Amino acid sequence: MTIQRIVSSIVSSIAVVAVVSTQPSHPRLMLTKAEAAEMKAALGKVPVFDTTFQRAKRVVEAALARPMDVPRPVDAGGVTHQRHKENYTEMHLAGILYAVTGEVRYAQFIRDMLMKYVDLWPTLPKHPMAASESYGRLFWQSLNETVWMVHATQAYDCIYDWLPASDRSAIEGKLFRPLAEYFIREHTSEFDRIHNHGTWIDAAVAMAGYTMNDRDLVDKALYGSKKDKKAGFLRQMELLFSPDGFYTEGPYYVRYAIMPFMVLAQVIENNEPSLKIFEFHDQILRKALYSGLQLSYTNGAFIPINDALKEKSFLSPELIIATNIVYDRYGADPGLLWVAQKHGEVLLNGAGLSVAKALQSSSLIPAFQYASVEYSDGGDGNEGGVGVLRYGPVIDQSLVLMKYTGHGLSHGHYDKLSLLYYDQGTEILQDYGAARFINVEPKYGGRYLPETKTWTRQTIAHNTVTVDEQSQYEGKESVSERHHADKHYFSTADPSLQVMSASVKEASPGVAMQRTVALVPDSRFAHPLIIDVIRVVSSREHQYDLPYYYLGHLLDANIPTTSHSEQQQSLGSRNGYEHLWLEAEGNASGPVRVSWLNGNRYYSLIAAADSGTKVLFTRIGAGDPNFNLRHEPGVIFRRKGGSTVFATVLEPHGLFDGTKEFSIGARPTVASVHVLASTDEGTVVDIEGKDGFHWTFMTTNKSASDSAEHEISAGGKTWHWKGNYELDKNEGRR
Amino acid sequence: MTIQRIVSSIVSSIAVVAVVSTQPSHPRLMLTKAEAAEMKAALGKVPVFDTTFQRAKRVVEAALARPMDVPRPVDAGGVTHQRHKENYTEMHLAGILYAVTGEVRYAQFIRDMLMKYVDLWPTLPKHPMAASESYGRLFWQSLNETVWMVHATQAYDCIYDWLPASDRSAIEGKLFRPLAEYFIREHTSEFDRIHNHGTWIDAAVAMAGYTMNDRDLVDKALYGSKKDKKAGFLRQMELLFSPDGFYTEGPYYVRYAIMPFMVLAQVIENNEPSLKIFEFHDQILRKALYSGLQLSYTNGAFIPINDALKEKSFLSPELIIATNIVYDRYGADPGLLWVAQKHGEVLLNGAGLSVAKALQSSSLIPAFQYASVEYSDGGDGNEGGVGVLRYGPVIDQSLVLMKYTGHGLSHGHYDKLSLLYYDQGTEILQDYGAARFINVEPKYGGRYLPETKTWTRQTIAHNTVTVDEQSQYEGKESVSERHHADKHYFSTADPSLQVMSASVKEASPGVAMQRTVALVPDSRFAHPLIIDVIRVVSSREHQYDLPYYYLGHLLDANIPTTSHSEQQQSLGSRNGYEHLWLEAEGNASGPVRVSWLNGNRYYSLIAAADSGTKVLFTRIGAGDPNFNLRHEPGVIFRRKGGSTVFATVLEPHGLFDGTKEFSIGARPTVASVHVLASTDEGTVVDIEGKDGFHWTFMTTNKSASDSAEHEISAGGKTWHWKGNYELDKNEGRR
Repeated sequence: MTIQRIVSSIVSSIAVVAVVSTQPSHPRLMLTKAEAAEMKAALGKVPVFDTTFQRAKRVVEAALARPMDVPRPVDAGGVTHQRHKENYTEMHLAGILYAVTGEVRYAQFIRDMLMKYVDLWPTLPKHPMAASESYGRLFWQSLNETVWMVHATQAYDCIYDWLPASDRSAIEGKLFRPLAEYFIREHTSEFDRIHNHGTWIDAAVAMAGYTMNDRDLVDKALYGSKKDKKAGFLRQMELLFSPDGFYTEGPYYVRYAIMPFMVLAQVIENNEPSLKIFEFHDQILRKALYSGLQLSYTNGAFIPINDALKEKSFLSPELIIATNIVYDRYGADPGLLWVAQKHGEVLLNGAGLSVAKALQSSSLIPAFQYASVEYSDGGDGNEGGVGVLRYGPVIDQSLVLMKYTGHGLSHGHYDKLSLLYYDQGTEILQDYGAARFINVEPKYGGRYLPETKTWTRQTIAHNTVTVDEQSQYEGKESVSERHHADKHYFSTADPSLQVMSASVKEASPGVAMQRTVALVPDSRFAHPLIIDVIRVVSSREHQYDLPYYYLGHLLDANIPTTSHSEQQQSLGSRNGYEHLWLEAEGNASGPVRVSWLNGNRYYSLIAAADSGTKVLFTRIGAGDPNFNLRHEPGVIFRRKGGSTVFATVLEPHGLFDGTKEFSIGARPTVASVHVLASTDEGTVVDIEGKDGFHWTFMTTNKSASDSAEHEISAGGKTWHWKGNYELDKNEGRR
Repeated sequence: MTIQRIVSSIVSSIAVVAVVSTQPSHPRLMLTKAEAAEMKAALGKVPVFDTTFQRAKRVVEAALARPMDVPRPVDAGGVTHQRHKENYTEMHLAGILYAVTGEVRYAQFIRDMLMKYVDLWPTLPKHPMAASESYGRLFWQSLNETVWMVHATQAYDCIYDWLPASDRSAIEGKLFRPLAEYFIREHTSEFDRIHNHGTWIDAAVAMAGYTMNDRDLVDKALYGSKKDKKAGFLRQMELLFSPDGFYTEGPYYVRYAIMPFMVLAQVIENNEPSLKIFEFHDQILRKALYSGLQLSYTNGAFIPINDALKEKSFLSPELIIATNIVYDRYGADPGLLWVAQKHGEVLLNGAGLSVAKALQSSSLIPAFQYASVEYSDGGDGNEGGVGVLRYGPVIDQSLVLMKYTGHGLSHGHYDKLSLLYYDQGTEILQDYGAARFINVEPKYGGRYLPETKTWTRQTIAHNTVTVDEQSQYEGKESVSERHHADKHYFSTADPSLQVMSASVKEASPGVAMQRTVALVPDSRFAHPLIIDVIRVVSSREHQYDLPYYYLGHLLDANIPTTSHSEQQQSLGSRNGYEHLWLEAEGNASGPVRVSWLNGNRYYSLIAAADSGTKVLFTRIGAGDPNFNLRHEPGVIFRRKGGSTVFATVLEPHGLFDGTKEFSIGARPTVASVHVLASTDEGTVVDIEGKDGFHWTFMTTNKSASDSAEHEISAGGKTWHWKGNYELDKNEGRR
């Protein structure tokens, strides 16, 4: 070594030392030195924490035992994609192991891997499978790259103090800074986008900034690339959630988005507690988690509105992070422990340790407090929303949901006023969700399948009315994004009669619709009835299709049907109709009943109808050359005319047990539904059935008001009610 | 009362007393006085027994609280059907409660109900819904009526000593004797039939005979209506099971049949221990239960060959009876406790109490010892059989089954050499089972649906070869009953290479077939491969269709396919083909791969093929005007020619976890399968794949022999092997 180089080396060491001394200690991102010490002390003493720690250890030990592999990326969802995902997971966990145990081999592993990325990343061009503007280099989309960085910076943060300055310099100079610059400069619009992808980038850049003590990066991440507070993390917190915590893309996406929100919030709290990030925007992060949980069914599955995969539930890893942090930050809600207990693992930091200790000391954990709840959409909460009515215990709960939100960004569906129904712990009236086999490489590289656009987003794919075989807003996102449905009323104070009502005006030109849904438990029925009334108003003639995508096996219908049993055709050629086989059809001559069996229970739809109503029995799966769709059934009520009312009752009934060869109540109680009147004042529906069963349901079509008096006359009869709705259980008389 | 009547009354009382004094004590059927005393002593002390007893009590108390209802029968599977079923259950349980507790109100309930039947039964004509020769009066088929009697006689037996003589006289004279006579005289052919319906009638009549001390009835039940031992219970024990316990109708039916066998055997043992009924025919009853359990998958589901409902498992109530009695009679097998533990209830007699006590005192219960096993069919065990190969722990076991039995009576299917495969705790290559919604009244009264004949029994509905679109034996039961397939060899000594082979000659005129199936675990694979080789020999040209009814979602195939996506037609018009939609088709140009996803695992079929092979992608559900069928997929390999070999490898691979967005190994290791040679000497199949993977499988086509040497030459190569088969893992070379 020459004198010159020795001197230079000494100088740079001094410089590094000097910088370090002014920096806060590491780790400082998701984990602090104090937390690491607490975790060390808890090892072997706190069961769920210990399980998680040991699991992390097994993953890392296995990684240490394998040759390290940092391959050139070639696929989207395949072997190299998976390898890089596992690499960041392994580094991240190794960082935690090092922080807690101090064993140098973990640090060495991270250092070696990061150095491989230092060598690889700068040489990478655009990913060979990149398909969109948001292309990545290491992965096919930049989103995965930001997730990589969120994890890699945490690993780096944990070994920061241990690393020689030269390595730090290489890792920061050749990997993290260029990555951050690339995110900010090459993906500026994404970086500044009010969208979950934006949150991920902001989190990645902020975490790099905090651990490298780079204020500029932090400020850009928090306040936008121009630092003008028009973009960035804080603006996202204000705009991506409605004031009560609804995430505009829906619960499936809040699952994903909540991770960078929670992670970055925790990092900010550890670094800039003065920002009071967890209090920001009226505790929006707390509300975000609760809205996600309230928009899951009791089995934890997120209600799959918009592009959503049904496998996702509160067991998804992102929810471990969010649940643990919220439990720790916002007071110890035992309902969150119920979720954490199902996780069976915790976050490996102070918050996770708190949860694990609470689980250890709780003898009886009550279920999460699922409630009937309405969430508004839009940053100001005035762009429609979503209503959920629930009844019954967690073990067997009826849930009915109506969607009357805004569009929900690029993953939104054209499904205003769509209805979903759960019972028996499972979906009964489904939303198809998204057409995607996530990460399954043979299925379009694991990406969204083309049928997501051609089928799952179309209006006909949903339990709502399609007008003239055209999707709402003509299936144009740009148009749909400018509109939203409107709440009419939402009333759950009386658990024996919960009712919600919403309307949409612009979705189909010249057609206004209002849907009113009641969930009605009654001592006559083992499970609540659903009353579903859709009033369609138009001055011109249209064709209206109202599908119910029931899950289960069709038993029978009360109308004669023509079965297309030797040859069948798709129902149409566009707007999703090309994906439906027409299996059979029939004409109503009065109220229509369609019954099916799902699990241990029977279900019947009883719909008001006359000879103007056609009934189409369909199955998804036409127009599907690549075998991408699930072949599931539906029944469509089709009617032509100007204004009309679809009034339907859904009755769950009876009990079937194939193992014990037991069946009772295979026939419903409800026999008929009739629309008695429907005017601008209100709609009156009559429901009759066995043994003198007779209900009359009234709902207002005027502005919502609890005090307004209503009166309608039709066919020589007059109905009065006060408030938005009334259910008259006038059994035995008529 | 006149003097005369008083005297008459005294005389008859004396007569009754005299008769009673020569009779053994009651109860004497499924429960003895001593057992009742033991049960009384155990109350509150033995958990599972207690749970069961309390459950019985709840059922009976609820019945006591309701108005008694003994309606005139009107439906098959509906309200009155269900009522009479519940009545016999309630009487039966009330009898046990009375025997144990001595509470007279239980006895009174039985007496009152029996007297209602005394009034009703003699007035009943043939049941209004009766459809067949085996019509009933109380139920639509006499079978249910015998089950009623099996329970009612037990109830009567329990209160026998308590009943006034006049009631006994009425019940015996107006109900049980006429019923027994009606069974013997009006249903003689059924009474003497070697069939599970016969067993039920025999049990009913024998139980009436024992409790009424009527030797004539007992003898007829045990030895046939002519008492010539050509029919009756003992003959059934000899003929309905093969020597190793296989029940000719299959495991689904043994589930049902085993109940009267076990019940009557227990009754005989309690009354005529000298018969040594449990030792009879080399302990055939013990073997019968074990064969039923060995022919269930690890989740307890009976393998659904022949008309079978998939809901049925070892959790079905009949298995509680059988498992408890076998545990008690044949030495305490802890594997049976594993089953009993899943039952969560026990038989309410001495045997059940033994099981409950064993459960109470066992800290660790090992799983039932599922094994690779072959069962022969036919009374002499020489009418083919069924082979089951298993590998892996109960938690995730590979099971492959080949059926090469006789026809299996009226519920038999035309499915010789059919293959079934289970993995991951579920069906992967399915047998459709039966088309039936048992007891679901809207579905054809809960009876077998017409599609059981038109679809589920047809050859094309099974994973075996259909010749010229015609079912085996032309779908004629009378013909099929005269034939059976033949075992070739069955070899499971080496768990790393289990192989079975069987053949059938007469099923399709002029076509002989041999199927050889190997289950091969290997360190390269997380789960065993299946090698499936079907050699078809014919001197004339035929069309051969080999379907695989896979369960799961198709990922892709390695051939271009034409999709019938706008309009699709049924594959044919008869023999089951009318129930298949042709969704897509393609032509092979070399080995064909078809991959699908089920649960957390991928599966690929890799089939030897050339341009002579068509691949048809089908879905069940055509020709189904009443919505009776499940719409499940299949892939058919179609080939025309004289002799041919279908050689296919099934590879389970990879791991998919949608909740955690994790996918690896979506592509199989096996890439190609080729038939290298097939002569009368043997068949040689080459299997190749990634990373130099290369296996050669050889199987003999001559008579089975462990010592025979085989040699085949083809294409300039020669293969030698000794014994029936060989797998040469010649990886890396060719």
